[in-house]
Amino acid sequence: MSRAKIAGSLAPGATVGILGGGQLGRMIALAAADFGLRTVVYEPEISGPAAQVTNQHMAGAYGDEARLSAFAARVDVITYEFENVPAEAVAYLAELRPVRPGGRLLAVAQDRWLEKSFFAERGIATAPFARIDNLTDLEHAVEKIGDRSILKTRRFGYDGKGQVRIEKGAKLAAAWRAIGEAPAILEGFVPFRREVSVVAARGADGAFTAFDLCENEHRDHILARTTVPAEVAPRTARDAVDIARLTAEALEVIGVFAVEMFVCETRGRETLLVNEIAPRVHNTGHWTIEGAETSQFAQHVRAICGWPLGSARRMAPRVEMENLIAARAQEWSRLIAEDGAHLHLYGKDVAAPGRKMGHVTRLFRTEEPARRESGEKLKDSALPPTLR
Amino acid sequence: MSRAKIAGSLAPGATVGILGGGQLGRMIALAAADFGLRTVVYEPEISGPAAQVTNQHMAGAYGDEARLSAFAARVDVITYEFENVPAEAVAYLAELRPVRPGGRLLAVAQDRWLEKSFFAERGIATAPFARIDNLTDLEHAVEKIGDRSILKTRRFGYDGKGQVRIEKGAKLAAAWRAIGEAPAILEGFVPFRREVSVVAARGADGAFTAFDLCENEHRDHILARTTVPAEVAPRTARDAVDIARLTAEALEVIGVFAVEMFVCETRGRETLLVNEIAPRVHNTGHWTIEGAETSQFAQHVRAICGWPLGSARRMAPRVEMENLIAARAQEWSRLIAEDGAHLHLYGKDVAAPGRKMGHVTRLFRTEEPARRESGEKLKDSALPPTLR
Repeated sequence: MSRAKIAGSLAPGATVGILGGGQLGRMIALAAADFGLRTVVYEPEISGPAAQVTNQHMAGAYGDEARLSAFAARVDVITYEFENVPAEAVAYLAELRPVRPGGRLLAVAQDRWLEKSFFAERGIATAPFARIDNLTDLEHAVEKIGDRSILKTRRFGYDGKGQVRIEKGAKLAAAWRAIGEAPAILEGFVPFRREVSVVAARGADGAFTAFDLCENEHRDHILARTTVPAEVAPRTARDAVDIARLTAEALEVIGVFAVEMFVCETRGRETLLVNEIAPRVHNTGHWTIEGAETSQFAQHVRAICGWPLGSARRMAPRVEMENLIAARAQEWSRLIAEDGAHLHLYGKDVAAPGRKMGHVTRLFRTEEPARRESGEKLKDSALPPTLR
Repeated sequence: MSRAKIAGSLAPGATVGILGGGQLGRMIALAAADFGLRTVVYEPEISGPAAQVTNQHMAGAYGDEARLSAFAARVDVITYEFENVPAEAVAYLAELRPVRPGGRLLAVAQDRWLEKSFFAERGIATAPFARIDNLTDLEHAVEKIGDRSILKTRRFGYDGKGQVRIEKGAKLAAAWRAIGEAPAILEGFVPFRREVSVVAARGADGAFTAFDLCENEHRDHILARTTVPAEVAPRTARDAVDIARLTAEALEVIGVFAVEMFVCETRGRETLLVNEIAPRVHNTGHWTIEGAETSQFAQHVRAICGWPLGSARRMAPRVEMENLIAARAQEWSRLIAEDGAHLHLYGKDVAAPGRKMGHVTRLFRTEEPARRESGEKLKDSALPPTLR
């Protein structure tokens, strides 16, 4: 495809601006480097992971328009590595340079009410939910959804922050105060069998490609392991990709994003229930660095530069990605000696509890599933990883 | 393998110093980043490719001991991306930090006389050669080796520089003057069928691993294409690896290096003739980034950090690497749209003639050899790529 055929495409030598300096920014920068692109990392304080792998970085607040403007002047396209990048910063930057994936995806992904409504309006199942703007809303919602539910702020929640579990006989006024009386949703529990995710990309030309369905296990509140392909019926995998495609098209995504879902069982048949959208490259897609023909990071760079998407073909019958959380990264010397294990460390100095220090990917030549430590028992959908 | 078991091994978070800032340094830095290592690039002027992918770089002359000393103080181990790094700089730095691969390999690789002698002393075939210290030596050598030969300076020759072809009836005094009356060798021509290389690594623990034999085609004086595996008899491939292993052990290599060889035909049987050693990661090993379980750059980082070597297993029946020379890199938009083509660009701004701007790697699912543009006719071994 010639450059002329893709509106707004960049050429190698162009500069990609990255908001956020963690491991996702780092891996985007490394993928950009493979294509001869420059990168500028922008974050409030230079923290390390992404800034280590580029000679251009800027420390600046996300609300500092002068700094943001200087950042935009140095780059040709802007992307971000985290969903809580302030919408105002994105709106400001979008006047100066393309910001990809675009603001519509970000707006929906940042607001649990918009997010759940987006799917509900399209007939795609989610856990039961209700919008909560005051204590009365909460009382009505608990009556309707039941007391096995969870109250979540609409915005800026992650890793269980801004969430309160509603128990039988719970004091609802206390729960409402606990989340700061902020706009929220109440979400009911749904029993599920597996957590899965689709990591997918949409190009500037409208092309859509999804990596194979990921099956995810959480441990101690954080993603512990992704196995690909997920152990689901072929139809379930196709349905999951269809949901991601619909999302990409409806929200005019340009870039990589993920949709997290639960696989439930209804009368012996698998059904999908959407949990949330991640408007960015995703931890459950790290296996693609070695496990797919194009990594999610290379795919993201292709998309945001206006280049054709690469093949998402899986390179082995089974691929597993294990997160190295906190002290687990100290086992690097064992992992580096393990035949076929691909170790990635993110250049972080302090292995604080819960901190993602790196990951390791293993390609297997057979489809035989790995032993699952968490067994096959049903889990509760609405519980955030922190409470499971 | 625990850290304690490997003498002098580094831990992630350590810093690798890289002498030279071109594409080989760039790809070493990118591989080091995967392991959570920091890198410092040292070069006379910040040129781009390597410095773009690290936040630490120093401009300094290779003869500037104060700058070299400051560089050494910032790093835990030192490596280099080019064979003509001044031996004095390496000797100076080696007093301060480990320099890998070590000085013995470098000393031999930098001097054509030592290099050829190294193999000759071990009964390994090379083109006929003679040491030339003066015009009389040259006259005697031409009598013995013949007038189909080439005069090459012992040191600092590359890409045909410091070389003069000796033709029938040539004026030897003029040839001697043309290379600056510098210590030299005279090398005779040998007809050969293929150019091959072994890219191999030796670890700090003495382990040795070679990637599969590479078959190389030059065009316009520069490596154009590498195809793996080389089309040679299994025994020839084994013999080539044995030569590399012997080299690694005799010169106590720690790191990745390459041995370039010619495949000749003697009475219908393939024989090998060593051409030269590259004491560093090598252009003919770029296919390993996608084509082998461990890339040559990751392997080099593992070795110089004192870590166990990774698997050199090839990932596809056939792998091809094509160099993108000068204007050829302008075809990036076609290459990026080609299914299964892995494009690498080095971040160079100016596509000067002969300049390596990037490369592209293709994995094939069958062993069927690619069409060879250069055909199967015999070529002359002693001719440098510039004269072929």
